[in-house]
This record gives sequence, structure tokens and C-alpha cells, in this order.
Amino acid sequence: MVLATTATAAAAKDDGKVADFLLDNGMEVVVIPDHRAPVVTHMVWYKIGSADEPPGKSGIAHFFEHLMFKATSNHAADEFDRAVANIGGYQNAFTSYDYTAFNETVAPLALEQMMGFEADRMRNLILTDDVVKTERDVILEERRRSIDTNPHAVLDEEVVATLWQNQPYRIPVLGWMQEMEKLNRADAEAFYDNYYRPNNAVLVVAGDAEPETVKALAENTYGKIARGPDLPPRIRPVEPEQNTKRVVTLSDARVAVPSFSTYWVVPSYRTAEPGEAEALDLLAEILGGGNRSRLYQELVVKQGIATEANAWFRGTMLDATYFTIRGSPRGDAKLVDLEAAADAEVARIARDGVTSDELEKAKDRFVRSMIFARDKQDHIANMFGSTLATGGNVQDVVEWPDRIRKITADQVKAVAARYLVFDHSTTGYLFPETEN
Amino acid sequence: MVLATTATAAAAKDDGKVADFLLDNGMEVVVIPDHRAPVVTHMVWYKIGSADEPPGKSGIAHFFEHLMFKATSNHAADEFDRAVANIGGYQNAFTSYDYTAFNETVAPLALEQMMGFEADRMRNLILTDDVVKTERDVILEERRRSIDTNPHAVLDEEVVATLWQNQPYRIPVLGWMQEMEKLNRADAEAFYDNYYRPNNAVLVVAGDAEPETVKALAENTYGKIARGPDLPPRIRPVEPEQNTKRVVTLSDARVAVPSFSTYWVVPSYRTAEPGEAEALDLLAEILGGGNRSRLYQELVVKQGIATEANAWFRGTMLDATYFTIRGSPRGDAKLVDLEAAADAEVARIARDGVTSDELEKAKDRFVRSMIFARDKQDHIANMFGSTLATGGNVQDVVEWPDRIRKITADQVKAVAARYLVFDHSTTGYLFPETEN
Repeated sequence: MVLATTATAAAAKDDGKVADFLLDNGMEVVVIPDHRAPVVTHMVWYKIGSADEPPGKSGIAHFFEHLMFKATSNHAADEFDRAVANIGGYQNAFTSYDYTAFNETVAPLALEQMMGFEADRMRNLILTDDVVKTERDVILEERRRSIDTNPHAVLDEEVVATLWQNQPYRIPVLGWMQEMEKLNRADAEAFYDNYYRPNNAVLVVAGDAEPETVKALAENTYGKIARGPDLPPRIRPVEPEQNTKRVVTLSDARVAVPSFSTYWVVPSYRTAEPGEAEALDLLAEILGGGNRSRLYQELVVKQGIATEANAWFRGTMLDATYFTIRGSPRGDAKLVDLEAAADAEVARIARDGVTSDELEKAKDRFVRSMIFARDKQDHIANMFGSTLATGGNVQDVVEWPDRIRKITADQVKAVAARYLVFDHSTTGYLFPETEN
Repeated sequence: MVLATTATAAAAKDDGKVADFLLDNGMEVVVIPDHRAPVVTHMVWYKIGSADEPPGKSGIAHFFEHLMFKATSNHAADEFDRAVANIGGYQNAFTSYDYTAFNETVAPLALEQMMGFEADRMRNLILTDDVVKTERDVILEERRRSIDTNPHAVLDEEVVATLWQNQPYRIPVLGWMQEMEKLNRADAEAFYDNYYRPNNAVLVVAGDAEPETVKALAENTYGKIARGPDLPPRIRPVEPEQNTKRVVTLSDARVAVPSFSTYWVVPSYRTAEPGEAEALDLLAEILGGGNRSRLYQELVVKQGIATEANAWFRGTMLDATYFTIRGSPRGDAKLVDLEAAADAEVARIARDGVTSDELEKAKDRFVRSMIFARDKQDHIANMFGSTLATGGNVQDVVEWPDRIRKITADQVKAVAARYLVFDHSTTGYLFPETEN
């Protein structure tokens, strides 16, 4: 669902086409001009995520995202932060399985300054034992706070690690505590040297900037950085066929309302046969993409047994990914009844397919959501960045709405029948301590 | 339970003590003399197993066990086989998570010849593309035959991979099919060069041989091989704390009788606090070690609801290991009732402990089984080899009966209460297609 663009609409607005080029050192640059407001979003995507971490070093990708905010040989630790704040800008960063990204949203005049800071920290970080130790305490605390004190998160981690028995997506992005505790300066330096290189990065600029300007600025900043050694192809262990039904249960006194989530291994945009990933996107939308979806209408509105019921396909991934449905019962409704009703909706689509009416409406909602996304530069930049960081190209993003339009009801039914097999699924249950 | 010896008894028989020494190239040699019969068992243990494999290369350790039977620069592919057969000997090899071992049982006069062959193939294998391809077909067929056509094995693989979410024991020793298919000559050569070195091997000779003789022969064969580069410590990813209850289910038309098996993560002899692994061994013996065990007496004999019910602790492992109980219902008995009855026995020990009478009897059975084991040279050799290949030493084996003798009923109760927690366990269910 993230894999989308407004390129068609943008072109109609005379805002120029998406530009895509390489710097001499191998850094890819994508520019999506949009001059409606004097704002520009600048993002650098590194093709390195938690799924690329060496065995036993879980958390290093996310740890490194933190270390990127430390001092460089040219700037003190808080200079970049302050510079962005001083001009009323916005700065963020995030790490996922397949990539790590850094973004700033600022006035166009500040673009060169952002590039300067960002290019600087690509190679000039000062990684001391002290910096590493201090920031390691921060990520350990982040894990304690966001995972260990949250039963939903604890369960999710173990469900995901049960779903994936070989693929590295089984390892949490934050890392396993016992491995995070041992991350050290040597690990950080090796990671930096291997992966924080222009030829492993994609620059995405969306907003009030012209490709020629961006190119000149990029050559003058990022372009000055030496190309790094060629990286091997990102070929990771893949998942064996799942032959079993797997269930993971957590009962915890901190849980107020029970919930279930069922996961199936499905192909991603990168690994799917033509049309399958688009069909999975539409299936998720029709089954549980919002208030018009079957799960919502049947379980929340009609039967009144759920407070929430939805479906989700995580398509923009380098390797095989998952399709999931989730639900939480309302009032006295039993989780087991809610789950059975949700499963019945899944089985119904796999058996009877979808109507052409709901398929067309789902396509419309998708394409509309892409048009609305134009108003969010970071959303557009995310579409391009995440696609380019997971083996896709600009054309994949630009042509996505057309590919969605071509999907037939038969294709949606086919992916439901092929992939959403209950005997080969993984379900997590969260219960209050007393109920089980 | 494998961690055992008869050293005390053997010494009493004047068969000499266990000898343990290093060759100049770092190869360790253990000799357990036993002159009652003119037979000697010769084993070489390499400290390399499936848990040491590089990511994506699952199956390479076991594959290499096969390749070791191919031609060397000195011998044709079947010469070693024929030599052993010609003298009425017996030859075998096996691969596990932590080690790969090769053994021959022959008349003492053939010991030098065995050492010659075994030393030769440690370094002189001829690994051609053709050899690799042919033998790869063999291991693929072995996997198809032993796993894919066997629902018990299919389930076990996925239960184990659900139990271990980070430790490499989650990966099957045979490997995942899709990775085995891609193993190539470069993988095999790298594996051979890294691990098939005298300083990564242990020679165990049990039977009708004297340490001085073995030493002279070993120096003249293995001793001629150059020491390899030092290997890094075998530090592998360890398991995060398990917070959930996990269940894996397989229903298959080929299954006649349902069964369950429940696994708990527990420490191994290598990772346990003092006494804990010994207590787990005794707990397994008392709970489900044989016809005198609680599970057998209660479920098979008294209630008559099980055809089998047992417990097992796999203690001789480099990293954390598992404790498991298993059962299969008799006649019309329901699996759910059998499981509940078995769980009740586990809970009863964790709550009330064991009696001093059953503890003493369990200790007696253990020590007796070690004495009986003397009649099986390969069993004795296995005890030493597996211990030395998983971080232990000769003294650990020799003193094991004394350590077992010292375990108290409180210690057995304590490990049951500490580790056998149902909310943090993993259970596999195998059902006939119709029952679920």
C-alpha cells in the first residue's frame, strides 16, 4: 500500500516529472518537484536494515540510526538538530528491516545546508567508546520502554519470530536485549564503513525544488564523497515452506481487552509473480482496509462483536512478507467467536471471490489515497525511498496505479485461495491474565 | 544423559586410566583402554556442527560429512570403505548441532591403518564440481526421504524452529531444502579449509589399545598434518527469554495415532549453573526415563491412557538446550486428556518435589547404565567425544557419576519449578487428518 505515487497527477499539474539520476560515486538521486508550497523534504535512504545485520548483532542497524545524530569531525552533536529547529524545520529518522532513512522538511533555501549536514555525517562521524556506550544505554532504555513494558509488543515480537523460522525478518528491528547490550564500538565502526557509503544510499527530494538545482547541490555535497567498496547482492536466507499451524499466546495482567492476529507468509512486491502483490494489496483493502471493508462491516457494524477488525499487507519488502488480519472483541463477545467470524470472511473470499463493484471501489480508494498523499511530501518521499531501497525502481512507483487498475477479481480470489490457508498460518492471542 | 563415563569402574578393572594429551599441532587425543576383547573404536570428532553454519548455508556441515567419503589425493572414493569391510570392521559418521564425527570399530592391528585413512581425508579431499553435485543429489534425496515423507519429522522441524527463535539450533541439521539445493564447491572448500584441521579435532580411541601406542601412531599420522589457523571462540546468538506459550499443529492423513510433545528451554551442561544440568538429567529420569518413571507408571500402567509417555533432557550441548515430554494416547483415549495428565505430573514434581527413594533409585539406574555402557565402546567414545566437542573436558566426564550422586531432591524440585513453566513452553501436536 505504501508502494504508490502521484506521478500522473503531478505531471498534470505541470510540476514536472520525477527525475532520477546517479552521481558519479554511485549515489542515486530522485527528485519529485511540487511547487505548490515553499517546502521541501530531503531524505537519505541507506539500503541497510535490521535484516542485514550479522548474526548475534541484532539492533546494530537501529543503533546506528541513533549514532548518526552524534558529533562529526565538522559539527558538534547537536548542531544539525539546532540548525533544523532554527529555521522552523522538521527532522526525523527511522530504521526498518530493509532500510534506514533520515529526513528533514525545511524551506527550499535550506536544502543545501541539509545536504551539507547529511553528507558530512555519512562519513565523518566520530565514534568513541564513550559515544557508543552512552547511546547504547539509550537504545536499551528504548527497548525496555517500548517492548518490555508493553504486552502487545512482547507478543508481536514472538509471533513474528514464530512466523519467520529462517528469514531474518524474525529478528526485531530494535534487536534482542541480550545482543544489544553487547554492541560495541568495533561493531559500529564496521557497520558504518560497510554501509554508510554513497553507493549504498538513495537521496529523495520532494517538494519545491527543481531537478537541475538538486543535482548541482548534490554534486557539490554528496558528490564529494568517495565511492565505497561494492557491496554484495542482498541475498538473505529465505523461508522454507510452512507446513504447520502455529499459535502463540500471552496472558498478562496489563491487558484490558483480548485480541488476535493471524499472519500468513506471502510474496512482497519484490518477490511476487506479476500482479500477485497488487492483488494482495487490493485483497487487504477489500477484506479489512477501512470502514467499508468486509471485516469492518460484518464484525463491527453488522454483528457488533468487534471494536476493531482489519487486514494489512506489508508489500514493500525485499524478501517474502506477511498478510495479516487482526481483531478485538466488543463487550461480552468472545475472542474465539470473533476469530471464527473473521476467518469465515477470509474463507468466503478465497471460495467466492470479490464482486467487481467492491474491486472497483477498492481501486478508486487506492488511487484517491495516492492523490491525497500529494499533500504529504514525506509520504511521497517514502513511497520512492522505500521502493528504491527494496529492489524496485522509479518506474515501479510511477506505474503502480496502472498496475492496480488492471487487477481482476479472479486475481484477488486467486491470491486469497493460494496464500490465506489457515493450516499454514500463525496466530497470536493476547489475553487478560484471567481469561485463557 | 549422554554425559557419562565408566572411568571409575574401568580403573577398578585395571584397564588403565583415561589418557588425554595434545599433539603438537593442537589435536586432542583421548584414550580409554579396555582390553577385555580385541576390538578398538577409533573416532575423530570435529568441533563443527550445523549450528556453526554461515547464514543461508544450512546443511553444509552434514553435506561435508558425506563429502568426507569421497576420493582424496591418496585414495579412491571407496578405498577406505573397502579396507574397513575387508577386515570385518564397522564404519559410521554423523553430524549434529555442535559436532561432526567419524568412527571405525576394528581389530587393534588395523588402528594405524584407520588413522592413516582418517588423517588423509582431514586435508587431502579432492572437491570437484562433479563430486559436489553428485553428493548434493544424495543429501537432497536423504532430506526428501527422511523428512518430507514423514509427518513426525516435518512437525518436529517446525516445533524446534518455533522453540528457538534466535539460537541456531532452530535450523535442522540436514538443512532447509532451498538452501541445500544451492550448496556448491566454493561453500564446501571454505568449510573444509576452516574447520577440518587438527586443532579443531578430537581423536577418541576406546578399547584394546594403550595410550603410548595410540600416541605414537597418532603422531605418525595426524601429527604430520599442519596446524590450521586459530578459530574464533564458538560464540553464537543466544536465545531471548521466552514470554509466550507456543503451539505448532500438523494434521496429516499419513498419521495413524496422534501425539504431543512439549519443549522447554533449559540450560545445557555447558551453560548451566553448578548442579542444574545434573538435576535436569535426574528429573528426566524420574519423570519419564523408562518403565519405572512417573509418566509411564501413571499414564501407561495406572490410567492406561497412553501407549507411550516419556521425558528427555538433551544435556550435552554447547548452548542452551531443551527438556521435553512426549506422549501418545492408547485406544479411545483423547490426546487432550493424556496431555493434561502428563502436565499434572510435571506440575506435581515442580510443586511437591521427588521422594528420596525415587531419587536414589534414579541415581542407581544412571550409574548402572554407565557401567553397562562399558560393553559398548562406541557409547563410551561418544560420551567423551560429545563432551569434548561441546566445551567440556575429560574430567567432566570422569567425575559425572560423583556429581550425579550429590544432587538433592530439593535441587530436582528447583529445576522443575524454575524451568518447566507451561506458559513459557512450546508444544507440537500431530493429528490424523480427520482429528483436530
